[in-house]
Amino acid sequence: MHLDSENLDPQHLSTAEQDNLRQVAAELADAARRETLAHFRSAGLGAETKESDRFDPVTVADRASEAAMREILARRRPQDGILGEEFGPVAGTSGLTWVLDPIDGTRGYLSGTPTWGVLISVADATGPVYGLIDQPYIGERFEGGFGRAEVNGPRGRALLKTRAHRPLSEAILFSTFPEVGTPDEAAAFRRVAPGARLVRYGMDCYAYALIAAGQIDLVIEAGLQPYDVQAPIAVIEAAGGIVTDWQGRPCPQGGRVLAAANPAIHAEALALLNAG
Amino acid sequence: MHLDSENLDPQHLSTAEQDNLRQVAAELADAARRETLAHFRSAGLGAETKESDRFDPVTVADRASEAAMREILARRRPQDGILGEEFGPVAGTSGLTWVLDPIDGTRGYLSGTPTWGVLISVADATGPVYGLIDQPYIGERFEGGFGRAEVNGPRGRALLKTRAHRPLSEAILFSTFPEVGTPDEAAAFRRVAPGARLVRYGMDCYAYALIAAGQIDLVIEAGLQPYDVQAPIAVIEAAGGIVTDWQGRPCPQGGRVLAAANPAIHAEALALLNAG
Repeated sequence: MHLDSENLDPQHLSTAEQDNLRQVAAELADAARRETLAHFRSAGLGAETKESDRFDPVTVADRASEAAMREILARRRPQDGILGEEFGPVAGTSGLTWVLDPIDGTRGYLSGTPTWGVLISVADATGPVYGLIDQPYIGERFEGGFGRAEVNGPRGRALLKTRAHRPLSEAILFSTFPEVGTPDEAAAFRRVAPGARLVRYGMDCYAYALIAAGQIDLVIEAGLQPYDVQAPIAVIEAAGGIVTDWQGRPCPQGGRVLAAANPAIHAEALALLNAG
Repeated sequence: MHLDSENLDPQHLSTAEQDNLRQVAAELADAARRETLAHFRSAGLGAETKESDRFDPVTVADRASEAAMREILARRRPQDGILGEEFGPVAGTSGLTWVLDPIDGTRGYLSGTPTWGVLISVADATGPVYGLIDQPYIGERFEGGFGRAEVNGPRGRALLKTRAHRPLSEAILFSTFPEVGTPDEAAAFRRVAPGARLVRYGMDCYAYALIAAGQIDLVIEAGLQPYDVQAPIAVIEAAGGIVTDWQGRPCPQGGRVLAAANPAIHAEALALLNAG
């Protein structure tokens, strides 16, 4: 398939091209599901430490999962670039880049929780235009983009739609770690958290899926990489939500992220993050 | 079925009686699965507050789930007692008591996470002799007792076996909330946590299932009720682990709980909890 210059704008990707991207994304997710489940909850799971000063497990499954996805892309979408967690970037000619996190939430994966996920998205120069969050053990896939936002899981298919606005005092807020990030980042988080109805931790990328599914209102995190955030951005925005950095700007590069079910709760959380 | 006095000792429950208890427990769990899933992730989920000073949601599903289980017990095991979270205790004549938590982790349930569970156990005067932890959305059931410890889930049946000993510096520790409990309880927890390889939050009863499944080493919690802890005790002990209070005593009444994969990691954590 040849991409002309108009196709670099997601608004102008043909329906056939959108369908092809969606099909390839599903193939990647299926391959990643096989590779990650092959090692999930296996007794001898190994982990290396990437950086000597913090715990960052990288498993055999993580690498096998991304390698399997790259092999499919080399055949099916050689014109596209690739940005993945485990291997070096691949330049493309189409203006589109696949952004891959083969296991988001490696700590959860190592612990056996069903909250890690495979993150796959397609970006143009402006950011992600399509994404999916897959939880292989549950068999649940959240996808968003090209005018679609849906989940396919244990109870079949359903549309994704974020929650209507309720004030922070009625809202549910998630973050993966109570430490959040640096001391300044933790302090900003703690200007928001005490005002929420409920604060929960430990969900990895699954928390973003819960925003898209209309279950929770906010996720606030820091220190994210592009491959941690681009699929969540695509899924949440397709479902009616909003994802920015802590200044309210687009955040396809990651960093400090504020994901919200609707603009009103986003504004309330943003004001508190910056009230220090 | 008539119970003679010998049957009050779990060691002397006949095989037929054990099979009947196990079958009834499965019926209860199936009924609870239907009732809890009927409302899980529904948009209009209601919640009351039991106590004015803290957030403790009780949903329609919670009550419907326990009511459905009690209706089955009234037919199938009228001779047994019942202790449940939602309704008053029922006295029995058999010496056996069913201990029921229709939704353990109501906050997780309200948030849409797949980490809450249905807890069902059978106790005699000494504590739980059989228990199960069911996660309805994943379709995963962990059971332990009467010489069996197994999980039946998305990947079929497997035996449960806790992890072999590794030092705390290599161990994974879970607790549901970083606050843990009172300030003293939080301080005790923080004497253990920094020494662990990894600390995670937010898993509700699923963390106990992960000990039984050999995925993690420790769960430390406080403020538990009998119906929060008895099924986990049965499942973990059947899988080779150990569950006590923070003094190393049996804890079928709940309170402060230390669940461990093996006696050696239990001893290491117990010493630190009491080092203040």
